Amino acid sequence: MHRLKVRVVEEALDANNTIAAANRADFDRNAVRVVNFMSAPGAGKTTLLERVVHDLPGVRVGVLEGDVQGSLDAERLASMHVPVTQINTDAGFGGECHLDANMVRSALPSIPLAEIDLLIVENVGNLVCPAEFRLGEDVRVMVCAVTEGEDKPLKYPLMFRACELVIVNKVDLLPHLEFDLQRLLYNIDQVHPGVGMMSLSARTGEGVGAWRDWLRDVALREEAIA
Amino acid sequence: MHRLKVRVVEEALDANNTIAAANRADFDRNAVRVVNFMSAPGAGKTTLLERVVHDLPGVRVGVLEGDVQGSLDAERLASMHVPVTQINTDAGFGGECHLDANMVRSALPSIPLAEIDLLIVENVGNLVCPAEFRLGEDVRVMVCAVTEGEDKPLKYPLMFRACELVIVNKVDLLPHLEFDLQRLLYNIDQVHPGVGMMSLSARTGEGVGAWRDWLRDVALREEAIA
Repeated sequence: MHRLKVRVVEEALDANNTIAAANRADFDRNAVRVVNFMSAPGAGKTTLLERVVHDLPGVRVGVLEGDVQGSLDAERLASMHVPVTQINTDAGFGGECHLDANMVRSALPSIPLAEIDLLIVENVGNLVCPAEFRLGEDVRVMVCAVTEGEDKPLKYPLMFRACELVIVNKVDLLPHLEFDLQRLLYNIDQVHPGVGMMSLSARTGEGVGAWRDWLRDVALREEAIA
Repeated sequence: MHRLKVRVVEEALDANNTIAAANRADFDRNAVRVVNFMSAPGAGKTTLLERVVHDLPGVRVGVLEGDVQGSLDAERLASMHVPVTQINTDAGFGGECHLDANMVRSALPSIPLAEIDLLIVENVGNLVCPAEFRLGEDVRVMVCAVTEGEDKPLKYPLMFRACELVIVNKVDLLPHLEFDLQRLLYNIDQVHPGVGMMSLSARTGEGVGAWRDWLRDVALREEAIA
């Protein structure tokens, strides 16, 4: 072995990244594109999925739901006849506040990879730790609700930096809030210059078309991204 | 030593609880009551503090702010001439998604315990891990905004069970949401029967009097609680 020590260190992956790479290889083998979908609790991830899962022509969608406990969101999506797999971090994973690559790996046998083109992993609602664990995804998307305030990018910058797209949700409530949307968008761009952003309302459907089109583009990409 | 082994195990505290007990002893020695104040990101904790810190007759308030990064909330409260100490979990604590007893212990020398009656610890915005770490507090309070949805108690039960009081905030937005307040209150009571609850709007001030009175009662308690 003639490797320099510094090379060895650079190539050393932590356990999570090693498992994420294995997940990724399985996704690629099945030509499945994967979205790691993150937000604070109640920002509207599940509603945003309900809005689009049956509106992606040529794209078969599967969902992997991450929750500390319960399967409320999984049931909402399963009732729409989407293949859904539930991970509870409480059972066997110590009540973790995030998904990691090993949890996703544990779920793989339950996901019909051969029958889907796009897997959306709905992470645990949390703006901190989910950003620190790669799962083997192609892209990371976060949802930030306008009800959470303009300062969230400044307080949770790692999450905003980790994502390729930031969805600003609940804009239907803007007339009822003391909230400066331009200030939020400015703050997002400050912590992650040039990141993709879209403003929409999962409830009214305003702006949801752009989210659907973005997701379809990801699903139909030929090349792996990450 | 005649202790039975089972006694030893029962009395064994984990490191966090050992340090929390030390914090608690320091708080008691200074006759300071302590509130561990928790919520998801953007639920309105800081605004709820701004509403009451100068409206508690006979109670001198101090604040310990926990954030992953930055000091935005601390600056908001410091501008109101409240003694504020900032803990950043990013610097030296690995970017943790919660406060723990050791972080609070590290901050103690910076908190003017002899000059305050009530210390409010504003935890990191997160509905999972903060509930797992005692800090040495007397009581734990959480804020749940109606914009987060009725299902949060069912998805994050540990947080709702850990608290002596659940504040339901942002009720001024109820006319603009598809939201069943009774369903939320029912779900809270399901996961934590009999827990104290109050509904209010930090923005309009509706219902804030009850929060102020509750906080003053805690501050003026003679006996330690936890």
